[in-house]
Amino acid sequence: MIDLRSDTVTRPTEAMRAAMAAAEVGDDVYGEDPTVLALQERVAAMLGHEAALFMPTGSMSNVLAVRSLVQPGQEVLCESAAHIARAELGAHGAYSGVTMRTWTHPRGHVDLDAVQALYAPDLGPYFVRTTAVSVENTHNFAGGTVLPIDQLRDLREWATGVGVGIHLDGARLWNAHVATGTPLAEYGAIADVLSVCLSKGLGAPVGSVLVGSADTVAEARVWRKRMGGGMRQVGVLAAAGLHALDHHVERLADDHAHARLLADACGADPASVETNIVVVDRSDAASYVERAAAQGVRVAAVGATKVRLVTHLGVSTDDARRAAEVLAAL
Amino acid sequence: MIDLRSDTVTRPTEAMRAAMAAAEVGDDVYGEDPTVLALQERVAAMLGHEAALFMPTGSMSNVLAVRSLVQPGQEVLCESAAHIARAELGAHGAYSGVTMRTWTHPRGHVDLDAVQALYAPDLGPYFVRTTAVSVENTHNFAGGTVLPIDQLRDLREWATGVGVGIHLDGARLWNAHVATGTPLAEYGAIADVLSVCLSKGLGAPVGSVLVGSADTVAEARVWRKRMGGGMRQVGVLAAAGLHALDHHVERLADDHAHARLLADACGADPASVETNIVVVDRSDAASYVERAAAQGVRVAAVGATKVRLVTHLGVSTDDARRAAEVLAAL
Amino acid sequence: MIDLRSDTVTRPTEAMRAAMAAAEVGDDVYGEDPTVLALQERVAAMLGHEAALFMPTGSMSNVLAVRSLVQPGQEVLCESAAHIARAELGAHGAYSGVTMRTWTHPRGHVDLDAVQALYAPDLGPYFVRTTAVSVENTHNFAGGTVLPIDQLRDLREWATGVGVGIHLDGARLWNAHVATGTPLAEYGAIADVLSVCLSKGLGAPVGSVLVGSADTVAEARVWRKRMGGGMRQVGVLAAAGLHALDHHVERLADDHAHARLLADACGADPASVETNIVVVDRSDAASYVERAAAQGVRVAAVGATKVRLVTHLGVSTDDARRAAEVLAAL
Amino acid sequence: MIDLRSDTVTRPTEAMRAAMAAAEVGDDVYGEDPTVLALQERVAAMLGHEAALFMPTGSMSNVLAVRSLVQPGQEVLCESAAHIARAELGAHGAYSGVTMRTWTHPRGHVDLDAVQALYAPDLGPYFVRTTAVSVENTHNFAGGTVLPIDQLRDLREWATGVGVGIHLDGARLWNAHVATGTPLAEYGAIADVLSVCLSKGLGAPVGSVLVGSADTVAEARVWRKRMGGGMRQVGVLAAAGLHALDHHVERLADDHAHARLLADACGADPASVETNIVVVDRSDAASYVERAAAQGVRVAAVGATKVRLVTHLGVSTDDARRAAEVLAAL
Repeated sequence: MIDLRSDTVTRPTEAMRAAMAAAEVGDDVYGEDPTVLALQERVAAMLGHEAALFMPTGSMSNVLAVRSLVQPGQEVLCESAAHIARAELGAHGAYSGVTMRTWTHPRGHVDLDAVQALYAPDLGPYFVRTTAVSVENTHNFAGGTVLPIDQLRDLREWATGVGVGIHLDGARLWNAHVATGTPLAEYGAIADVLSVCLSKGLGAPVGSVLVGSADTVAEARVWRKRMGGGMRQVGVLAAAGLHALDHHVERLADDHAHARLLADACGADPASVETNIVVVDRSDAASYVERAAAQGVRVAAVGATKVRLVTHLGVSTDDARRAAEVLAAL
Repeated sequence: MIDLRSDTVTRPTEAMRAAMAAAEVGDDVYGEDPTVLALQERVAAMLGHEAALFMPTGSMSNVLAVRSLVQPGQEVLCESAAHIARAELGAHGAYSGVTMRTWTHPRGHVDLDAVQALYAPDLGPYFVRTTAVSVENTHNFAGGTVLPIDQLRDLREWATGVGVGIHLDGARLWNAHVATGTPLAEYGAIADVLSVCLSKGLGAPVGSVLVGSADTVAEARVWRKRMGGGMRQVGVLAAAGLHALDHHVERLADDHAHARLLADACGADPASVETNIVVVDRSDAASYVERAAAQGVRVAAVGATKVRLVTHLGVSTDDARRAAEVLAAL
Repeated sequence: MIDLRSDTVTRPTEAMRAAMAAAEVGDDVYGEDPTVLALQERVAAMLGHEAALFMPTGSMSNVLAVRSLVQPGQEVLCESAAHIARAELGAHGAYSGVTMRTWTHPRGHVDLDAVQALYAPDLGPYFVRTTAVSVENTHNFAGGTVLPIDQLRDLREWATGVGVGIHLDGARLWNAHVATGTPLAEYGAIADVLSVCLSKGLGAPVGSVLVGSADTVAEARVWRKRMGGGMRQVGVLAAAGLHALDHHVERLADDHAHARLLADACGADPASVETNIVVVDRSDAASYVERAAAQGVRVAAVGATKVRLVTHLGVSTDDARRAAEVLAAL
Repeated sequence: MIDLRSDTVTRPTEAMRAAMAAAEVGDDVYGEDPTVLALQERVAAMLGHEAALFMPTGSMSNVLAVRSLVQPGQEVLCESAAHIARAELGAHGAYSGVTMRTWTHPRGHVDLDAVQALYAPDLGPYFVRTTAVSVENTHNFAGGTVLPIDQLRDLREWATGVGVGIHLDGARLWNAHVATGTPLAEYGAIADVLSVCLSKGLGAPVGSVLVGSADTVAEARVWRKRMGGGMRQVGVLAAAGLHALDHHVERLADDHAHARLLADACGADPASVETNIVVVDRSDAASYVERAAAQGVRVAAVGATKVRLVTHLGVSTDDARRAAEVLAAL
C-alpha cells in the first residue's frame, strides 16, 4: 500500500528509532529533560525567537499560541479554510473562549485589504476587539500553498502599526522554507508566536513546538499543564524531532517533486502544486478513492468532488512513480 | 438635547409607565407571572412560532438562541459585521464555546454563494461542522439595512436541505416589517430561533424575547437561569413590552421618515437609508460629533470617518427638523 | 392563598409601583440612568464600599463577584450548602471556569479550622490555588441562619493575612442586619466584594447589587455586558430598590416574628429560626405540602423529609396567624 | 543523586527502550496504530471494561473521564485533597465547566455518610445535580493510602441505587493492587470510568489510559482530539506501556518495601505507609530538603511542615538503604 492520504501517516525510520532509544531524558514537567531542552532551544533559534515549548500536537500548540494573543472577548482573524478554524474541533472557542472572524482566499493567502476591513480596533467595552491575525503556511486546505513572504511582511508591518499580534500556524512551515528558500527566521520574524510540527513532513511520530517570547512560553507552559499536555520523559519524542531536523528538512524537496509527478499523472493544474499536496477535481471522488485503493494507492476524498494526495517521508520515488501510473489509469 | 446616538436611549412614555404600574405580576422563575406569559404567547404568535421567553437583553437572547443550534465544537456562519460577532463582547465564544466564520457584504445581506462555500458538512470527528447560519434584520452596523425576504427564503430553503439551523437576530425586525410591509410571521418562518427586542425601536425600557419551538424555549429557560437572567416579577417590564406592541410598532414609519429627512440634510446617500439609521461619511467624525453636541444634537462616531444617527420614539418630527438644520449647517 | 414557598414571590406594593412609574431614567449601558446611579451610590455607602453595580439577579451578581476574585485555575472555598454551590446551576464552573472545594456546617457557619485546612497557598504552577472564600449571610439552605459577626471577623483577619479575598453572598444580608442589629457596614467590612438582593425580603420585583472597589465594579460592568446583563432604562427597577431601602428594611423584623409564630405552630425547633425561614422535619413532606395547599397555604418541600416556610412582605400578621392555624392542624 | 521527589521521575530501562524502538506503529488519530490498539485492549481487559483510550497524561485522562459523567451545570463530589481537585490546575472547571463539592478524610477515604449528605438528587432546573463521585486510589496527597475495597463496593452499591456515576483516578491503582492483592478487575468493577497511568510506578516515560464503556471511549476520543491530545504514531509510547505491564507491576512490592524502610529511618508512622509514598512531619521542611540534597538525596517539601519521599523504579534497594542512612542522620 502506498499511503497518500496525509503526511501524518509517516513511520519513524530506523535511524530515528535509534535516536529515540538512545535519548537522554528527565522529567519535563519539572523542566529537567535535556533532550527536550535541546530541541526547544534549537527550534527557537532556527526561527529567531527567544524560547520554545514542546507540545503533544499541533492542535494544542495552535490553541495555546492563539490564546497567548487573544483573551475571551477578543478576536482572531484568519482565512476561512485555516486549520485553526476548520480542523481543531472548535477548541479555540470551546476551550479558550476566543471569537473568530474570517476572510476567504482561494489559495489561503493573506488578503490585507480584507484584514484591514475586518479589523476592529479598541472601541471601548461594548465591542469585540481584534488582537490577533492568524496565518497558515503552508496552507493545508488550500492545497499546500505557500504564503508569499512579501505578503506576510506587509501584514507584519500593518499589524505592528495597529498593535495586533500575529500567529503563524507553521505545521508545514518546513515545506514553505524548502519550496522557496526563504530562511526559517524570516518566517519567524513575521510572527509573535508560532507553531511548527515535527510529525507531518518531518516524519517524527509525535510532537509540535510552540515558539515565541520567553514570557509567552512561560505562560504557555502553565496552560499546557492545564490542558493535559504536560508529559514526563518526553526526550524520547524530542530525540525524534532533533533527528528529523538533522535529516528530514532538505529532503522535503523530494516530496515536492513527487507531488508534481503525481499532479501530472492526475491532470491536476501544475501551478496549484507548490509543495507536497495535490488536490484533484473528480466528480467521482468517492469511487476514485475506492478504485485507487483496490490498486494499492490510498488517497483521501476531501469533499464530494475533491481528492487529495499528500507525499511524505514514507513515499519513495519508486512509490510515487507507481502511484502516478495507477492514478493516471483511473 | 436631541439624542440620535442610538434607539436604545428611549425613555418610557407616560402611558407605558402607567401600564407598567398596573401590571399583574408573579414569580417568573416559577413561570407564574401572567403578564410575562401573555407577552411570550403574543410574540410567539406574531412570529408564527410555538413559544417564546422573556430575556433581560438582546445579547443574552442572541447568545442562548445561537447556543440552541450550535454546540461547542460546531460553528455558526454570519456576516462579518453582525451584532453577534462584533457587539456582544465575544459571549458566544466565551460563554457558549461556539466557533464562528464569516462572510462580508457591504449591506449586511445574505450572500448565499459565500454561505455555501463556507458551509462545512459533517465530515466526521476531525472537523468543525456548520450547524447554523445567523442573519440580522435589520442589520445594525450596515446602517439599518433590510435583508430582502427572497434572499432569506432562499437561505431557508438551502438550510433546510442540508440540515442547518437559522438564527435571526431581529433586534430591529419591527423596523424591517414596517419598512417593507412583509408580515412578521413571514420573517419568523425563515428562522428556527429568533430574538426580538422590546427596547430599541419599540421604546420599552428593558427586554427582549427569544422565540422558537417549545423544546428550544424550555431549554433556553434553564440556560437563562444559569446565565443569571432568571428574574422574578418581570411583569412590570413585560407590561411595557405589551404596551409597545399595541402602540409603537406602526409609528416606526415616522422614525424612518425622520431618518430620510436627516439623511437629506447630511448629504448621506438616500438609497442607503432604509429604516431608522443613517450613516454619514465624515473625515472629521470626532470633531463633527463635538460640534453637533455643542448645538444640542448628540450623534455617535462609529469609526474614524463614520458618524451614525438613529431616530426613535424620543425624537419628534420637530426634533428631527431641528436636528436636520443643525447638521446641515455643519 | 398564603404563599410561604419563598420570599422571592413578593409583589410590589402600590407605593413601590408609584415610585417605579415616576422614576427618572436613562440608558444605563452608557451609565446615564440617574436612578440607577443613585441606587448604586446609596448601596455602596450603606455597605462601606467604593462602588456598586445594579444586576438583573443575585445569581449573576454572585457569579461576577466570585469571578472578580477567582481566575480559571484558581479556587473558591465555601460551605457545601451555599447558594453559589447548589442553586446557581453550576454557573461558576460553566461560565467562569472556577474551581470550588467545600466544608460542611449544619448551620452554614464559617468553620475557620476547616477553611484553613482546605486553604491551598500558591505552591507554583502545578497546583490549584485558593484565592477566595465565599460566605452566605443569612444562609438560605441552612434555614436563614445568621453567620456570627465574630466568626466573620476572624475569617477576615486570617484571609487578609494570607492574601485571600472574601465574597459575601448577602442576598438576605438585610435579614441578618435586622435580626442582630449589626450595622450593614460592619458586614460590608468583612468582604472584598459582596452581593445584596433587592427582591426577596426587600420586596422589589427585580434586582441585586454587586458592591466592591471601584476597580472591581468597573471590571464587573464589562462582564455584566458580556453575560447579557447590560439593560437600558433600568431606573424603573432601581426606583423599586430605592423605595425598598426607604420602607422595607426595618419591617423585616415583622417577617422574623411571623417565622417564629409559624415555627411554634409546626413544632419546629425555635432555636433554629433566626430570621424569616422555617425548616420543618416531616417524614410526609410531599403530602404535607399538598394538604397545606388544599387549605390555602403554599409551602415547599426541600428534600424528601423537609418542608420550608418563608415569610415576607406579602404575608401579613393575619396571614401568618391563619397559616399557623392551618399548619398546626396538619 | 537518589531522586525521591516523585515516581514521575523514572527513566525508561534499556529493555523498555528496546521495546519502544521495535514498536510497530500507525496513525493513531485514524485508529491505525497496532501497538496502541493492543495496549488499549489489554488494559480494558485487565480492568474488566469494554474499551480503553491512550492519553498523553493522567490529567487529560481524568478531565475527559469526569467530563463523560458530568455536564456543565452538574457536579462531581470528591475528597478535598484529591488530585482532580488540587493538582490539575482547575481544568475540570476551566475546560469542562464542572462544579465540584468535597468531603475531607485524613486518609483520603470515601466517607459514605458525607457523600450521602452532600449528594444532590435531581431537584429540577434550579439546582445543581450530583452526577458523579470521584475517588483516587491510591490517594496521592494522603500519602499513597489504599482505599479499602469494601468501602468502594459500598459506594458502588449506593451510587448504582441513586443513579450516580463513579470515576476512579487510578494513577497509582497498580500500587493498590500489589499492596492488597485485590484483583485489578475488582477495582475496575466499582467504576464507570477510570484512568490509570503508565508513567509513575510503572516507569513508562509517557502515557495514561482512560477505561470505560465503548460509548464513553468513543466520545472521549473526540474530546481528546479537541483538547489537543490526538497524537500520531503513539505506538512508540504504547510499547513502553505494554513492556511495563509485563515487567513492572509485581516489582511495585519492592517500592513498597523501600518506602517502609525509609519510613523507619525518618521516624514516620509506619502505619501510614501503605504503598510507595512516605510523608514525614518536619517543622524544618525547607531546610531538611536542602540538607538531604546536599547529601545526594532529593526529597520534596509538600507544605510548610511536610516532606514527601516516593520510591519507584529508579530507586534500587541499595539506593533506598543509602537514602535511609542519609535521612536518619538529619
